[in-house]
Amino acid sequence: MTSQQAEIAALFENAARLAAESLQEQSDPNQPVVNWIGPEDLTQALELELPAEGRGLGSVLEIARKTLHFSVRTGHPRFVNQLFGGSDPAAIVGEWITALSNTSMYTYEAAPVGTVVEVALIKRLCDLVGFPEGEGVFAPGGSISNLMSVLSARQRAFPHVKQHGLREGERPVMFASAESHYSIPRAGIVCGLGHDATISVPVDEVGRMRVDELERLIQEQKRVGRTPFYVAATAGTTVAGAFDPIGEIAAVARRHGLWLHIDGSYGGSALLSKKYSGLLAGSELADSMTWNPHKMMGIPLASSATLMREPGHLEAALAMNADYLLHEDSDPQWNLGDRSLQCGRRVDALKLWFAWQVHGDIGFERRVDGLFDQAQKFRQLLAERPGFRLIRDQEGPNVCFRYLPPDQRDAPAAEWPRLEHEATIRIRSQLAREGSFLINYASLDGAATFRLVASNPNTTDSDLTALLDAIEAKG
Amino acid sequence: MTSQQAEIAALFENAARLAAESLQEQSDPNQPVVNWIGPEDLTQALELELPAEGRGLGSVLEIARKTLHFSVRTGHPRFVNQLFGGSDPAAIVGEWITALSNTSMYTYEAAPVGTVVEVALIKRLCDLVGFPEGEGVFAPGGSISNLMSVLSARQRAFPHVKQHGLREGERPVMFASAESHYSIPRAGIVCGLGHDATISVPVDEVGRMRVDELERLIQEQKRVGRTPFYVAATAGTTVAGAFDPIGEIAAVARRHGLWLHIDGSYGGSALLSKKYSGLLAGSELADSMTWNPHKMMGIPLASSATLMREPGHLEAALAMNADYLLHEDSDPQWNLGDRSLQCGRRVDALKLWFAWQVHGDIGFERRVDGLFDQAQKFRQLLAERPGFRLIRDQEGPNVCFRYLPPDQRDAPAAEWPRLEHEATIRIRSQLAREGSFLINYASLDGAATFRLVASNPNTTDSDLTALLDAIEAKG
Repeated sequence: MTSQQAEIAALFENAARLAAESLQEQSDPNQPVVNWIGPEDLTQALELELPAEGRGLGSVLEIARKTLHFSVRTGHPRFVNQLFGGSDPAAIVGEWITALSNTSMYTYEAAPVGTVVEVALIKRLCDLVGFPEGEGVFAPGGSISNLMSVLSARQRAFPHVKQHGLREGERPVMFASAESHYSIPRAGIVCGLGHDATISVPVDEVGRMRVDELERLIQEQKRVGRTPFYVAATAGTTVAGAFDPIGEIAAVARRHGLWLHIDGSYGGSALLSKKYSGLLAGSELADSMTWNPHKMMGIPLASSATLMREPGHLEAALAMNADYLLHEDSDPQWNLGDRSLQCGRRVDALKLWFAWQVHGDIGFERRVDGLFDQAQKFRQLLAERPGFRLIRDQEGPNVCFRYLPPDQRDAPAAEWPRLEHEATIRIRSQLAREGSFLINYASLDGAATFRLVASNPNTTDSDLTALLDAIEAKG
Repeated sequence: MTSQQAEIAALFENAARLAAESLQEQSDPNQPVVNWIGPEDLTQALELELPAEGRGLGSVLEIARKTLHFSVRTGHPRFVNQLFGGSDPAAIVGEWITALSNTSMYTYEAAPVGTVVEVALIKRLCDLVGFPEGEGVFAPGGSISNLMSVLSARQRAFPHVKQHGLREGERPVMFASAESHYSIPRAGIVCGLGHDATISVPVDEVGRMRVDELERLIQEQKRVGRTPFYVAATAGTTVAGAFDPIGEIAAVARRHGLWLHIDGSYGGSALLSKKYSGLLAGSELADSMTWNPHKMMGIPLASSATLMREPGHLEAALAMNADYLLHEDSDPQWNLGDRSLQCGRRVDALKLWFAWQVHGDIGFERRVDGLFDQAQKFRQLLAERPGFRLIRDQEGPNVCFRYLPPDQRDAPAAEWPRLEHEATIRIRSQLAREGSFLINYASLDGAATFRLVASNPNTTDSDLTALLDAIEAKG
């Protein structure tokens, strides 16, 4: 071993110890969720100027320590802010190996292990969706996966688009619910159709797409001479956590010849659970689906599967046949470059594979059940307390609610949304700054509402109770 | 410490030891570059079925070991196959911390450290390009960065496109050299313009865009009623490693009002070197640039900077103002979500920051100089041997060459390209299968040529000599 190799070995061992300590600290409810300071102060505290003369390997551990000190502890039981929480130890080691064996997914030759592992994982996810002949690829996130679905749908509906673009007079339109993720209309923008080309379908009182409205809007668009070609059903909406009725949407899509995509970025993981997979009933009728193991499954970002019921659509939309990358004798089954929107592509498959080996189907099912049950428990706790009320009440993994402080409860009912709006923004900001809870808010029906996200298996019933207590105390 | 925490700590320490061992093995020229087996055999060897019952954390180390055994050793001195090589130990630790503190770059609140670090890195890269007022964002790879440049250019040229799409009769066209990367025309396809909308500009004898041809083609497109709006100059072409003459292209772009993008995915790193930065002379005149630290700088995939001379263009093209993500009071300077094509976005900034602290400007300059010098050395070695000839002879980090075995050298000169083509494919495949060298090939002027990529600082002069010896022996 050279002295440099010895130094690297020592650094790696010290970093491993720091990582283990940090995971312990993350799970301690007596620690703050975040040591919050503003961006200018943080820039100073990190001393992040890039030096002319390098500081050598000996500086790494201190930088790592500072980084962890000021990072949000997303595995903390009181981090309920975003659609993910913590990260799985087995998957973390998978990421280490990915960084170490640094390669790119474009060819089997460059990434043999990544390729066969990705193919096996995609096959399993496809089987769970109900795509027995399916194929797919990992992408850098749900937005890119959703974009890939729109590109595939556009190519099927307008086969000349890849070579020649749209023809004069062609006016494609797509549909998604009013509470779908912004990446759906943005995919239309990227494609050159403009924001106008995505028709927003109203939702029912709990946030699910209204299928009667979808039918009506498709007919309306056809009457004005536009060509409906794509509808996105959402399984787990970003704010409410609602599940659109896929089976009913599929019937409409089939009648009108639309590509049906499921944005299951968040809620796709319900398919791992016997108890909750019914929320995606009819998924086998879709043409494509996005599923992010980096959300409910606890895999570190990014892990986003783009799944297709039939093979060939991704290549049809995306393949460029660059012979410097994919040689003439390369088998497309094992050379995934032509089905991706990227050229060089990080090996995102290992971390999920490592975690699946450790937890198995049963472990993931237990995790997902636990998260849905956690949301349900929170709804019960909330119902017992005056001043709190549920918004978009349904069985998904998010709980949206408003709170009205006692001294404001005699205000006229018409003023409640405004008062709740102000209380929400004020209280959640106080909690975040003091680092006691990170819980996000969003606008629903024109007023801010708290959004608890059950994505963190470390959150216990007592954390949920403590959150309600804290909101009351700040209120 | 609970027993589970102790198990995690032990796993992390063992994984760190395995990582250090693996790095040592990677650098040993007596080890094969890859233990090559085919995809079906590998699927069996890895036992990669996903179990119903989890195998527990105890299974992770064995899986990691198997993964490393069958992975390509991209840090091996005889891996000269792709536009990257190895991965930096400091950056590897950066990736560990990224996986551990798992979060997303959309808001400062969720990723305070990632945000301030990314802003500082982007500022430094912009300064090196000559964009003192610039801004930017990391993307999952060069193809996505290039797509973002096309989207920004389209938005500037056709400001109605985001809301309404293109108007009837608008026919935008873009330009890139015949040897540019496929992601440029593919960006046009994604945008809905079709492959036809990218005009391929001929290159000179060493692979640089011919500026007289660019001028002629722009005028030709204007005459037929199309609207030129974008030209991509390449700094380091994928096959030849050539640098387009940016200053001259900028003059043409300015005259015709085109957005000038530099695809410096590969060669942008020359800006770190006083000796080689002249290859990008005129970069300050561009509107945007792609730069991949995951190529010549040795950062693990993916590290791709999308850089803009003026602020605001990315937001203009991409922002969706989703209030569940970016609250009304959020400062866009520190909340980067609206300038990205992703929503959830991995923290790619840490690894580059860690490496920069360790190496400093001077360390990176030494690395980049060494890689260019390595290519130059290989050209000299090659010139001394009969049967070898350079194709696209220039000073970039790639060396393209053909080899004609001795028993074929009396064939008529007209047959040489065919014979060299066959020899190239046969020899490089033999080298790859036996694991002695990984060197890629590509088609130039209709025939396969070897492409040596100087992206691996571990490659020594004796490895370069051994490569030429091995090609002669197989020939």
